[in-house]
Amino acid sequence: MSERIRNQSLKSKVMSAEEAVQFINNGDMIGTSGFTGAGYPKGMPAAIAAKANEAHARGDEWAVKILTGASTAPENDGVLAEADAVSFRSPFNTDPKMRAKINEGKVKYTDIHLSELGMYVQEGFFGHMDVAIIEAVAIREDGSIVPSSAVGNNVEYMDAADRIIIEINEWQDLELEGMHDIYRMPMPGSRVPLPICNPGDRIGGTSIDVDPEKIVAIVHTDGPDRNAPFRPVDETSKAIAGHLLDFLDGEVHAGRLAYDRLILQNGVGNVPNAVLAGLEDSRFENITAYTEVIQDGMLDLIDSGKMSFASATSFCLSPDAAHRMNQEADRYRNHIVLRPQQVSNHPEVIRRLAPIGINGMIEADIYGNVNSTNVAGSKMMNGIGGSGDFTRNAYISSFVTPSAAKDGDISAIVPFASHIDHAEHDVKLIVTERGYADLRGLCPRDRVRKMIDIAAPEYRPLLEEYVEFASKSKAQHTPHDLTRAFEFHTRFLETGSMKK
Amino acid sequence: MSERIRNQSLKSKVMSAEEAVQFINNGDMIGTSGFTGAGYPKGMPAAIAAKANEAHARGDEWAVKILTGASTAPENDGVLAEADAVSFRSPFNTDPKMRAKINEGKVKYTDIHLSELGMYVQEGFFGHMDVAIIEAVAIREDGSIVPSSAVGNNVEYMDAADRIIIEINEWQDLELEGMHDIYRMPMPGSRVPLPICNPGDRIGGTSIDVDPEKIVAIVHTDGPDRNAPFRPVDETSKAIAGHLLDFLDGEVHAGRLAYDRLILQNGVGNVPNAVLAGLEDSRFENITAYTEVIQDGMLDLIDSGKMSFASATSFCLSPDAAHRMNQEADRYRNHIVLRPQQVSNHPEVIRRLAPIGINGMIEADIYGNVNSTNVAGSKMMNGIGGSGDFTRNAYISSFVTPSAAKDGDISAIVPFASHIDHAEHDVKLIVTERGYADLRGLCPRDRVRKMIDIAAPEYRPLLEEYVEFASKSKAQHTPHDLTRAFEFHTRFLETGSMKK
Repeated sequence: MSERIRNQSLKSKVMSAEEAVQFINNGDMIGTSGFTGAGYPKGMPAAIAAKANEAHARGDEWAVKILTGASTAPENDGVLAEADAVSFRSPFNTDPKMRAKINEGKVKYTDIHLSELGMYVQEGFFGHMDVAIIEAVAIREDGSIVPSSAVGNNVEYMDAADRIIIEINEWQDLELEGMHDIYRMPMPGSRVPLPICNPGDRIGGTSIDVDPEKIVAIVHTDGPDRNAPFRPVDETSKAIAGHLLDFLDGEVHAGRLAYDRLILQNGVGNVPNAVLAGLEDSRFENITAYTEVIQDGMLDLIDSGKMSFASATSFCLSPDAAHRMNQEADRYRNHIVLRPQQVSNHPEVIRRLAPIGINGMIEADIYGNVNSTNVAGSKMMNGIGGSGDFTRNAYISSFVTPSAAKDGDISAIVPFASHIDHAEHDVKLIVTERGYADLRGLCPRDRVRKMIDIAAPEYRPLLEEYVEFASKSKAQHTPHDLTRAFEFHTRFLETGSMKK
Repeated sequence: MSERIRNQSLKSKVMSAEEAVQFINNGDMIGTSGFTGAGYPKGMPAAIAAKANEAHARGDEWAVKILTGASTAPENDGVLAEADAVSFRSPFNTDPKMRAKINEGKVKYTDIHLSELGMYVQEGFFGHMDVAIIEAVAIREDGSIVPSSAVGNNVEYMDAADRIIIEINEWQDLELEGMHDIYRMPMPGSRVPLPICNPGDRIGGTSIDVDPEKIVAIVHTDGPDRNAPFRPVDETSKAIAGHLLDFLDGEVHAGRLAYDRLILQNGVGNVPNAVLAGLEDSRFENITAYTEVIQDGMLDLIDSGKMSFASATSFCLSPDAAHRMNQEADRYRNHIVLRPQQVSNHPEVIRRLAPIGINGMIEADIYGNVNSTNVAGSKMMNGIGGSGDFTRNAYISSFVTPSAAKDGDISAIVPFASHIDHAEHDVKLIVTERGYADLRGLCPRDRVRKMIDIAAPEYRPLLEEYVEFASKSKAQHTPHDLTRAFEFHTRFLETGSMKK
C-alpha cells in the first residue's frame, strides 16, 4: 500500500467509498476521470448511486451532474443512470443505460468536442465544479497524482473542483508511472506554442500537481477497466480497411505520402481496428499515431516493430491486451505517451503533424456531410467524441463504415444527413466495403456519383431516384428537394427499414 | 516606374495584358491574388475574358479554373463569369454574376475553409496549377514580390504554378511595403510551431521569394480595389451590436474577459462593422484583432487609440478609408500586419490567442446549427469563407444576424437548418436584434427556448408549433419531426415567404 500513497499526510484521507460519499451532495457538478472505458472511477459511482437511491426512497429529489473525459463503463455511467442519479452528462458516452436515459429526456446531455470541454469547465461555461473524482495508480511524495490508464480532463477537473476524491486502483500497474505527459494548458491570454513536432515529443511532467488541501478522500479500488473482448476482423471490416489502404498506397504513388512517414489518427471500433491489422501486412514502416486511444491493433503494431510511437489520452484494450500492458508497461513506455485530452486532441498539434484521420460514422449524405451522433436526427448514439477535433485539422480526414446496417434496413448513404457533425467542407474521403469516395476538390454535384458508387447496391436506385427529384431544384449548386430530403429516415421511422 | 520594378532582368518581362494572355490556355488552372475585394488582378481577367469570347465565337470550348484567396470584384470574377470563361471556381465568392453561374450549374464551385486551400493546392488535391496571377505593389531588387492589399494564397499559388504573371498596380500605395508578414508554411512532415503569441508578432519577411524563371509576364495596372461605399449603421445592426457588447460586458463581470484584453475576429458586413462602431463607445481598451479582413471600423478604432493592433490577410475598405490607407500606410504599418491566409486563419494561432469570433450567417436552427452558405439548402450565397476556421477555434464563437430578411419573408431561425456549416457543437452564441442566445453548456432541448426568444415575433408561433410536433419524437435528445423539419423552407420555395 505504501508504494501507492507516498505522501505521509495524505494517508489520513484514506476511507471507504461509502464514507467518501459524504462529500457528494445533491446538485453537485462532478468531474471524473475516464476515457473510452479506461481509467474511470470504480468505487465512488456505486456509492453515489446508493445515496441517490436512499434519497429517492425518502421521496427526495437527488441527482448530480457528471462530466467525464469520454465514455466510461457499466460500473460508472451504468450504475449512476440506473439509479437516476444523473441530471446532466457530458461529453461522449457509450453506456447503453445512460444512453437510454438521455434519449428518454431524463438526462440532459451536451455533446461537445473533447478538446474543448476541459477549458470550458475551467472557464465556468458549464457552471461551478464541486468535486473531481480521479482514478490514479499512485500519489507521489509531493502529493502529486499519477493517473491510471486515461488522462482525459483530470488536470482541468482537479484544478476547477473544490474537492478532490482520488481512487487508487491496485489493478492498474504501477509501471504506468512515467507513461503520462502532463501539460497544464494555460488559460487564454497566456498561451504559448505547444512544442510537439513528433507524436513522441514530451512537453510536461509525469504526474499532476494538485492542492493537497482539496483532497478530501482517498479510496482504494481493485478492478479492471472495461476491457471488451477482441472481436475478430470480419469480412466487411477487412474490405473497408483494404480500400483505405489502397487509397493510402495511391497517395504514396502520387508523392503525397511516404511508406516511412505515416501518422495515424484512428477512431475506436471494429473497422479502425481492421485498418491497424491491415497495416501489419502493408509496406508502411515506422508508423506513428497521434490519436485519442491506444487499441489492441496499436500494441500489435508496436510489438511487430511496424509502429514506433503512439500518442493518445487513454487505452481501449481487450482483456488480453490489457494483461499484456500490465505485464509490460515498462517496455510500452518507450513507445506510448498518454496526454491530457486537450493536448491529444489539440487543433494546433493535429494541423502541424498532419495525420490521416480515420473515424466511424452513422451516415453520410450524397454531398459528403457526415452524421456521427444522432440516429434519424433525434436519437443520441455516442456523441461526437474527438472526431471533430481531428477531422477539421487532419491532413486527410476519412470516415469509414459498412454501407448498410441492421441487416440492410439502414443505409449509411442517404439523401440528406439527419444530423450534421462534419460539414461537406471537412470531409475528404468516405470508405465503405464497396470502395472509397475521394471527395477532394470536387463540387457538390460531382460528389454524388462517387457517393452512390459506395452505397449498398439495394439503395442505389433509391438514391438515384432522389437525385432525379433534386435535379429539378431551381438552384443547381447543391440540388435538393427539401420535401423528400428525409424520405429514407421517415420511412425507417415508420416501417423499420429505409427500403421501399 | 523604376521604383516599382527594381530587378533589372525582370523589366524585360513587362507587356500588356493582351500580350500576356498568350500564357493562358484553355483548361488551365489559375491561382489569383485577391481577398474580399482587395488585391485581385485588374488587368488580366478582361484579357482572359476576351480570349474566351473569341474562342466561343469560333465555336470552340474555352474555359479556365479559377482559384483565388477569397472574393474579388466585377472586373475579375464578374468579367470572367460574363464571358463563360470559368469552368471551376473556389473558394469564397461574392460576385453576383459568378454566383448566378454557380447556381445555374454552369460553374463548378468547391467551398472550402480558407486556411486549407493553399496547402491543398500545393498537395495537388485540386489538380495541377498552371498559372498564378498576382497583384503586387513592387518587385524588389532580388526579384521577390511585394504583395498589395491582400496576401491570400499568393505564396502557395506562386509556389505551385508553372508560370507567374505579376500585375503591378500603381494605384496601390508603395508604402504598403513592409506591412506584410510573409511566412512560407512547410509541408506536412516538416512543420514547426508558429511562434505567434500576440496579433502583432511577426514571423516572416516582407516580400515573397519566387523563382524568377517562372515569371513570364509583368503587367501594369492602375485601378482601385472594389471599395464599396461605407453604409451608415442602421438601427437593426446597432441593436445586434448592442446585445453583443452587453454579452461581452457580462463576460468581463464573470471574470472571463478583461476590458484591456479583448481580441476580436470579425467577419465582413454591416453588423460586424456596427460592432466595431459600438466598441468606440465601450469600456474596452487596447483591443486587438486576429482576423481575416481589415474594415473601416478597425481603422477608426486604430485612429481613436482604442485598437492597438490588427492582424489580417487583406483590406475591405470604403473609398474614403482606402484613400486614408493610401495616404498614411506608413503610419498604419505600426498597427496592421497582412499575412498569408493560411496563417491569418490558422487553427493553431486562433486556439492559442482565443479571440471572440463574430460571423454573419444565413440561418440557424432551434438547436444552434448554423447555415452560412446555401439558401434553402441548394443555392450558394457566398461560401463559408473563414467562418469555419475561426468558429471551431475561437474562445467564444458567435453568429450575428437580423432575425428576419426580405421584408420579413425569411426567418433567420428555422426548425432545421437547410445546410449545416457549423454544427451545434461549435456554436456558442447567436445574436439578433431581439437579444442573444447563450448556448454554452446547454443540452439541445434547453437551447430551443433561447433560440425562439431571439426569433422575429411573427415566426415564434410557427417555431413553437414545430417544437410541439417534434416533442412527439420517440427519441428526446434532439426532438425532430423529419416530415416537417423543412416546412419553413418548402413554404418559402412555394410561396416566396416562410410565413403561413
